[in-house]
Amino acid sequence: MIVRDRPSGLRLFLTMRGSILSRIWKSLLVTTVLAIVVTLTGGVLMHHKITLTTIPFTLMGLPLAIFLGFRNNSAYDRYWEGRKLWGELVLRSRNFSRQCLSLVGPVPPGKVDGVGVDIDVRARMIHRAIAFAHALRHQLRDSDSTAELKSLLTADEWQRLAKASHKPHFLMERMGEDLRHCLNDGRIDTVLTASIDATLSAMVAAGAACERIKNTPIPFSYTLLLHRTAYLYCFLLPFGLVDSLGFMTPFVVGIVAYTFFGLDALGDEIEEPFGVSANDLPLEAICRVIEINLRESLAEENVPRPFAPVDYQLT
Amino acid sequence: MIVRDRPSGLRLFLTMRGSILSRIWKSLLVTTVLAIVVTLTGGVLMHHKITLTTIPFTLMGLPLAIFLGFRNNSAYDRYWEGRKLWGELVLRSRNFSRQCLSLVGPVPPGKVDGVGVDIDVRARMIHRAIAFAHALRHQLRDSDSTAELKSLLTADEWQRLAKASHKPHFLMERMGEDLRHCLNDGRIDTVLTASIDATLSAMVAAGAACERIKNTPIPFSYTLLLHRTAYLYCFLLPFGLVDSLGFMTPFVVGIVAYTFFGLDALGDEIEEPFGVSANDLPLEAICRVIEINLRESLAEENVPRPFAPVDYQLT
Amino acid sequence: MIVRDRPSGLRLFLTMRGSILSRIWKSLLVTTVLAIVVTLTGGVLMHHKITLTTIPFTLMGLPLAIFLGFRNNSAYDRYWEGRKLWGELVLRSRNFSRQCLSLVGPVPPGKVDGVGVDIDVRARMIHRAIAFAHALRHQLRDSDSTAELKSLLTADEWQRLAKASHKPHFLMERMGEDLRHCLNDGRIDTVLTASIDATLSAMVAAGAACERIKNTPIPFSYTLLLHRTAYLYCFLLPFGLVDSLGFMTPFVVGIVAYTFFGLDALGDEIEEPFGVSANDLPLEAICRVIEINLRESLAEENVPRPFAPVDYQLT
Amino acid sequence: MIVRDRPSGLRLFLTMRGSILSRIWKSLLVTTVLAIVVTLTGGVLMHHKITLTTIPFTLMGLPLAIFLGFRNNSAYDRYWEGRKLWGELVLRSRNFSRQCLSLVGPVPPGKVDGVGVDIDVRARMIHRAIAFAHALRHQLRDSDSTAELKSLLTADEWQRLAKASHKPHFLMERMGEDLRHCLNDGRIDTVLTASIDATLSAMVAAGAACERIKNTPIPFSYTLLLHRTAYLYCFLLPFGLVDSLGFMTPFVVGIVAYTFFGLDALGDEIEEPFGVSANDLPLEAICRVIEINLRESLAEENVPRPFAPVDYQLT
Amino acid sequence: MIVRDRPSGLRLFLTMRGSILSRIWKSLLVTTVLAIVVTLTGGVLMHHKITLTTIPFTLMGLPLAIFLGFRNNSAYDRYWEGRKLWGELVLRSRNFSRQCLSLVGPVPPGKVDGVGVDIDVRARMIHRAIAFAHALRHQLRDSDSTAELKSLLTADEWQRLAKASHKPHFLMERMGEDLRHCLNDGRIDTVLTASIDATLSAMVAAGAACERIKNTPIPFSYTLLLHRTAYLYCFLLPFGLVDSLGFMTPFVVGIVAYTFFGLDALGDEIEEPFGVSANDLPLEAICRVIEINLRESLAEENVPRPFAPVDYQLT
Repeated sequence: MIVRDRPSGLRLFLTMRGSILSRIWKSLLVTTVLAIVVTLTGGVLMHHKITLTTIPFTLMGLPLAIFLGFRNNSAYDRYWEGRKLWGELVLRSRNFSRQCLSLVGPVPPGKVDGVGVDIDVRARMIHRAIAFAHALRHQLRDSDSTAELKSLLTADEWQRLAKASHKPHFLMERMGEDLRHCLNDGRIDTVLTASIDATLSAMVAAGAACERIKNTPIPFSYTLLLHRTAYLYCFLLPFGLVDSLGFMTPFVVGIVAYTFFGLDALGDEIEEPFGVSANDLPLEAICRVIEINLRESLAEENVPRPFAPVDYQLT
Repeated sequence: MIVRDRPSGLRLFLTMRGSILSRIWKSLLVTTVLAIVVTLTGGVLMHHKITLTTIPFTLMGLPLAIFLGFRNNSAYDRYWEGRKLWGELVLRSRNFSRQCLSLVGPVPPGKVDGVGVDIDVRARMIHRAIAFAHALRHQLRDSDSTAELKSLLTADEWQRLAKASHKPHFLMERMGEDLRHCLNDGRIDTVLTASIDATLSAMVAAGAACERIKNTPIPFSYTLLLHRTAYLYCFLLPFGLVDSLGFMTPFVVGIVAYTFFGLDALGDEIEEPFGVSANDLPLEAICRVIEINLRESLAEENVPRPFAPVDYQLT
Repeated sequence: MIVRDRPSGLRLFLTMRGSILSRIWKSLLVTTVLAIVVTLTGGVLMHHKITLTTIPFTLMGLPLAIFLGFRNNSAYDRYWEGRKLWGELVLRSRNFSRQCLSLVGPVPPGKVDGVGVDIDVRARMIHRAIAFAHALRHQLRDSDSTAELKSLLTADEWQRLAKASHKPHFLMERMGEDLRHCLNDGRIDTVLTASIDATLSAMVAAGAACERIKNTPIPFSYTLLLHRTAYLYCFLLPFGLVDSLGFMTPFVVGIVAYTFFGLDALGDEIEEPFGVSANDLPLEAICRVIEINLRESLAEENVPRPFAPVDYQLT
Repeated sequence: MIVRDRPSGLRLFLTMRGSILSRIWKSLLVTTVLAIVVTLTGGVLMHHKITLTTIPFTLMGLPLAIFLGFRNNSAYDRYWEGRKLWGELVLRSRNFSRQCLSLVGPVPPGKVDGVGVDIDVRARMIHRAIAFAHALRHQLRDSDSTAELKSLLTADEWQRLAKASHKPHFLMERMGEDLRHCLNDGRIDTVLTASIDATLSAMVAAGAACERIKNTPIPFSYTLLLHRTAYLYCFLLPFGLVDSLGFMTPFVVGIVAYTFFGLDALGDEIEEPFGVSANDLPLEAICRVIEINLRESLAEENVPRPFAPVDYQLT
Repeated sequence: MIVRDRPSGLRLFLTMRGSILSRIWKSLLVTTVLAIVVTLTGGVLMHHKITLTTIPFTLMGLPLAIFLGFRNNSAYDRYWEGRKLWGELVLRSRNFSRQCLSLVGPVPPGKVDGVGVDIDVRARMIHRAIAFAHALRHQLRDSDSTAELKSLLTADEWQRLAKASHKPHFLMERMGEDLRHCLNDGRIDTVLTASIDATLSAMVAAGAACERIKNTPIPFSYTLLLHRTAYLYCFLLPFGLVDSLGFMTPFVVGIVAYTFFGLDALGDEIEEPFGVSANDLPLEAICRVIEINLRESLAEENVPRPFAPVDYQLT
């Protein structure tokens, strides 16, 4: 995600960071060169004057507007839904840590902690919630979660995790087991268990919805139909403009193509919001927020610092 | 669902897989041939020059834009809602297995498992949840669920299922009975029973919403009015263009008809997202994900592998 | 609701079933006749040439597009929300029957069934849920519910129902009493009572939302403003077209008026989706689905068959 | 709210009840007179021919369409959300009365009713729910609630209510106290208390959301920008049309201004849906529905009759 | 937020308070001066006549309409969601105070208040809820919360709060602890604890969603692409208009630029609705409402008065 104020004045046109230009310059160049050629030949192609006026472009503009508007909205909806889901994860993690600390009681006298380890089961659950966020991020980005998860889990558990096909689901089931331990030990009754279980379910829901966005692109036929229409439009445009605009034709075609291709490329980028390109969601920074909140709840010492943008960008 | 990257360069125009062209080539051919005829005769029909200018198309463009935009949005909304519902089923199944394993206790000493079979009732509930997903898919696709369900149920239960008019509802009631057994056996109290019951209700909700989408198309009169307008528009278009565009008329009519008919056919395809055509939802792959997650939760051996796209397509 | 595939080829234009033409033919005829008169007189009205060009129609097109698009969307939203609410009723009824059968225990030994009748209270509750759906439908359609409800209730109860001003509310309160009986008899504890009560509340919610749609039309001033604009547009259109289109004027005016009046009439029809006209929701078929599901849950003998479309239509 | 069928034929244009004309006739008159003056002078202002063609209006049409479309949608959304909230209040009130009557048990033997009055606490809670609806309506309409609330409350309570700054909140807290009494008296356990409390919370939510709509208009700068653009558009329009339309100019300007100002005025009216103007929500009728339902639940004698529209209008 | 009625007549054009003009006058001036220069030179730039007609602006209008419409809607959605979230906070606070006072019982005989302070724990929880709203506001506005929070908390707690990196989260955890104390003291059972905990979770959810809006702007590339297109459009416009409009060109360019830049600047302002500029949300007034409601619930003496608009503005 790019974090910067809107540039003003001339810099508005010179800013390259965050500009979509770097993705579309090839198509733009081809279109503009074509427009120059058409302008120089006066729209004559193989001894035939191509009699296109601006009428076809008005007619084609109608489906194109529907396509581009639709794509724009659906891509942004996916982006924003992805952001909402991670916001949901942040708040559910906060609720989870509050619930663990206030609803789970101390170990009853005469009993040892059911999990048989020296760390309190409440802290372990909260650590696993941090691990859940990291594991989900790595799954969405197809990246390697080893380094981050190792420090949050015991060596034994980490080895079991490495074998699981769906890491967040594995961690979630471990949290379910922890809850069971607390219930067996009499540290919580079934009513409050149900409350915490509902929080776990909500975290699963957020994770599964992220997977849905990742795994289900906008139907391919849509994208294909849109691209074909947009490209045809821009390639034919110089023939329609050359008679009335003359030497200004390549300039106008370039601007129109810039907006069309730019809108399209922007849609491509944000419709899959969990990647690492410039406009994608800063999942790393969000996971860090979760980690900070939850470690502070446990009054831990080694609380990391929030990420700051590097070159205006958060990843 | 088609899973592939967007083709670039010339291949963008040559790709047939996933193109809507295969569905609309007949209408497109008729329209283009008509345009050629009109071009050759100069717009004269039975000794009468048809005096259409582009004005009627501008006027008709207004309701057409409303129709196509509406249809496009409502068809995609149905598609995306269908996808969300199956995502919901995935996450509810995960929650269900976690809840079964962590909230249902072991058989109390001195009691035998209430269901009187050798499989644990928790495993049976989870198997039935897998069966629920498969049964729902087969119901939505009007296909035969025998093969898949047989392996998940006992022979006796499977025979009863075969007689039920609504298979997912039947399976759901069996899960309700299982829950009752656990409650009677004292393996779970009523509070946690209510939690699991709520998860079952959410699975019923997802299933019923899928049926709603399947059984309620966009009102027929809409579709009829839209088709008539779109076809009239394209059939009349050559008369309006021939005077200004000359020999380019069939080409322009072809492009315009391609986008209109394509948008319309695409709507037809995705408005019923549970079928097996190219752009429909990959229900089989999603059911497989559910099966993998739930079998892994039970630490079973015979976990199937996820589906991979065949010829870029998941079904 | 009309259930049929989209007609293809020439039949697309000849289909009358489900066409909106039967509702708008009068307005359409008046407009077309007017257009013919204007064409014959060349746009001269009482010795004055009406100097309308197409410009006013472009200007008026803007608010008209906003009106028609808005009306189209809001009418469909009402239709689709109505359908969702009945889908909700289907699923809540299924959940209700599952909950009644799995969460309510048998009559405890040494107690007689608290309701003092020979039918089990669980069956009675489920019968009342079926009656609730029927009563809601009849209330929404202002039709007589006597016949259907009589067979589902005891004679005594049916007489009390006949006096109630709000029949679904009356039935719901009886279900609440049944639940109380179960609670008093110790067949269910308060936790599971709360679960079933929540299901009842959800059924009330669906019913009340249907009433909201029925009782609150789109604000009258909107409709009035829209109609006036659409009619003025179509009546003035021939004056604007006659100079450029000549004898084609009535034809073009006819098409444009067909789409405008059609879109408008379609909105009229589906904005009140609970009626019995061609495009309204098939409430009878949905109620039948509920009845089948619930009677099958009770393993009853006299399960009715689902409705099949008559002349492509479900009511 | 205006309740009437759509007028047909000539009456469509003559209906004044519900027409927005009464709100905009001044602006409309000014615009039309201006258009007549411009027509008579041929667009010459102080010896300068104002060379406006229709081009500026096409260009200005774009932002204007965005403004009017946005305003139209957001105003209607507010209207419809307001209606939903009152529908929510209706259903929550019904649920509340059902829950009070079925979940709260009788006074246990050996205890007197904790509230120490002769009316049962359940009836008192339901009366307070009726009062809540009335108080909310009066608060939203800034009207005096004395008359209606006096008959529903004891003299003592009514006096305390009169001093509270937020009457619905005061009543809600009294209902909370009633619930506490029931809990203390052992007439209900904590589980069912939580259910009823959740219903109270939902009623608070509906009320607070109504306040939100009332207190937060569409941002003033929007409205200002929209009005300025619409007025400038209509005042300049005659200069742009006079050359091509001649004596028809005032007529066309009048129609265009009617749709623009009408759409705008309609937005003004329904964006604050809780008032008492013609298109506002019939809060009084809705409150009456609540009162009827709840009094019938209590089997009271003095059940009022539903409101009928007066001169097609419900308030 | 600006609270005033719409000005009528001439004042509509003279009002500066709330007008967006103060933000865009620089760009507007540059554009208009450029238009004057172009008009004076007749569109000749360095001895070359720039042959732009209005065609490019029609073509560019399409993507521009998509951009501006999208931006307008998404900015307003953010604004309205922000408002909804604060409405949510208001109602949850009201529910929280009602629940604290009606669901938490008195200190049981023979026990002292577990928190060991002289203020009742219920009052302390409600004070903390007030502090939560203030802390959230200060966090969203990056302002200093010292003054307001000091009076609501004990000196000791205030010092701990000052060190916390996330103040609302810290306060929420303290409320969780309070709830735990009540539970330990037997003043509330686990069922009602779960109800109050759910209210706390909803408050956390509202707060986290506000942070999401604050921290995630509309993707920068969108804004950049939109600004570039809008500026290019307005800078080129005089060349396209000068031939047909003559000396009216600067006037028309000025109006068009005013609407485009105004729409854009308005989006800039309300897309981050938690600031203190003229059209932002009146968070201070909303916090005051919460404080008044909650202090009145506690029957406190020092209830502050609601804020009144200063110079038509609430902050």
